[in-house]
Amino acid sequence: MSRRKAWNADPEPLLRVEEGFRLDRVDPDATPGFPGRKIDGLEALAAGAARLSALQERLHASSTAGDERRVLLVLQAMDTAGKGGIVSHVVGAVDPNGVHYAGFKAPTAEEREHDFLWRIERELPGAGQLGVFDRSHYEDVLIQRVRSFAPPEEIERRYGAIVDFEDRLVAAGTTIVKVMLHISKDEQRERLGDRLDRPDKHWKFNPGDIDERLLWDDYQEAYQIALERTSTPQAPWYVVPANRKWYARLAVQQLLLRALEDMQLTWPPADFDVAEQRRRLAES
Amino acid sequence: MSRRKAWNADPEPLLRVEEGFRLDRVDPDATPGFPGRKIDGLEALAAGAARLSALQERLHASSTAGDERRVLLVLQAMDTAGKGGIVSHVVGAVDPNGVHYAGFKAPTAEEREHDFLWRIERELPGAGQLGVFDRSHYEDVLIQRVRSFAPPEEIERRYGAIVDFEDRLVAAGTTIVKVMLHISKDEQRERLGDRLDRPDKHWKFNPGDIDERLLWDDYQEAYQIALERTSTPQAPWYVVPANRKWYARLAVQQLLLRALEDMQLTWPPADFDVAEQRRRLAES
Repeated sequence: MSRRKAWNADPEPLLRVEEGFRLDRVDPDATPGFPGRKIDGLEALAAGAARLSALQERLHASSTAGDERRVLLVLQAMDTAGKGGIVSHVVGAVDPNGVHYAGFKAPTAEEREHDFLWRIERELPGAGQLGVFDRSHYEDVLIQRVRSFAPPEEIERRYGAIVDFEDRLVAAGTTIVKVMLHISKDEQRERLGDRLDRPDKHWKFNPGDIDERLLWDDYQEAYQIALERTSTPQAPWYVVPANRKWYARLAVQQLLLRALEDMQLTWPPADFDVAEQRRRLAES
Repeated sequence: MSRRKAWNADPEPLLRVEEGFRLDRVDPDATPGFPGRKIDGLEALAAGAARLSALQERLHASSTAGDERRVLLVLQAMDTAGKGGIVSHVVGAVDPNGVHYAGFKAPTAEEREHDFLWRIERELPGAGQLGVFDRSHYEDVLIQRVRSFAPPEEIERRYGAIVDFEDRLVAAGTTIVKVMLHISKDEQRERLGDRLDRPDKHWKFNPGDIDERLLWDDYQEAYQIALERTSTPQAPWYVVPANRKWYARLAVQQLLLRALEDMQLTWPPADFDVAEQRRRLAES
């Protein structure tokens, strides 16, 4: 038995956005539910990776027998908060054939001609898959609100449209795990500085990242409103403290593990006569 | 330094399908270019995984600076030959945001209304991505030939259409790595038997797998013809002995590593003034 420290409480209720939630009261340095240090966290992450992969295989197997269920991980965050690390270090444990990754950037001309959910709908995971949205339809109430890319009444309409949209997905068998990775403004400065210091990271840096940073408080307010308006019992938001990358990865992994465990997945039974197929095989 | 055995020859020319190639002369138990045993192979695979991931990150980085290059791995094989294991154990090392996986099953009614390459075109990898085809347009000259799902003159037309199609992809910046995993008929019997023996593998078994197995010789002939007709200098086929799963995975990994190394990828230089951005960051 390992003597490493592990979760001492399920982080799901600790991170969930409920009535009265206040983003400005979340400590980005905290590690809710996990009393261990980085080395403990990395060990727990490695153990969880194998379980996550095994559970997704069962989800995929179930889909081959007609099970329509699927999981959608929605990732939102300020720049450098670690969305990419979640994708590579948490989702990366899952078989590529079971993952549907979609990154959403500024909408194209074609996308702008449609309702904001049009491009989202096209990237939903199939039955048995783990979908990952690296940014999402929430950009349409975050940057679009902060930058006034859409009129206030349209932004207002979108909160309700998002809730209706997600309700429909949940009713059709999607488990939605919505995560905001929460870093501090100081931590972002350090991480952007690191990208500027390292030539192998320059490609990740965009001067526009600083333009957005200058609007930090406006973004925090837009997040607060989006979290309040769209965290529902069927598709809750989780705000994950992310100044410690290892904790954020471990927490998101745990949220995914819990979502999959709650599905009570089993291997689908044979839909053929095993003895008969053994005989056919022996004769072949 | 490890004392494990490693490649003693680049497997690329050893596995490539050239003029005069004969599938029935390939030993599915062989391990061309790799004198070591399974334990050596697994160690080499782990070392290669980190390199593959690092190279793909560079490919992705280059794409953000306008580089249009991408890689497409095409996997074809008889049932149980290990396509799935290549996807999870080789491609699985790469960041999910850099992978585009597409599995091709029997064409749908909509797909059958179009030319056979229509559904393929829609699943091509984007710039910077590693695309993986789990089955592919080659099904249209394999099962479709063996089962006479299309008339002989249409099958005949397709070989040329495939060569033209792949030429176009290569000209536009795609490196195509086409792999046939080659197992023996006896090995397939064992693997199908294993699926029948294990309830957690029943979902992977389909009685139709034995129907196809009964046509083994016809499939080998169809592969021979497809390999001859479509292995070109710009998009060669590789036949990978696959009775030893560890070797097949290692060999495909090596083919991908070589493809990426040949691209001579570098980190894109900053397209902004680093000092100016450092100043802006400090002030923010």
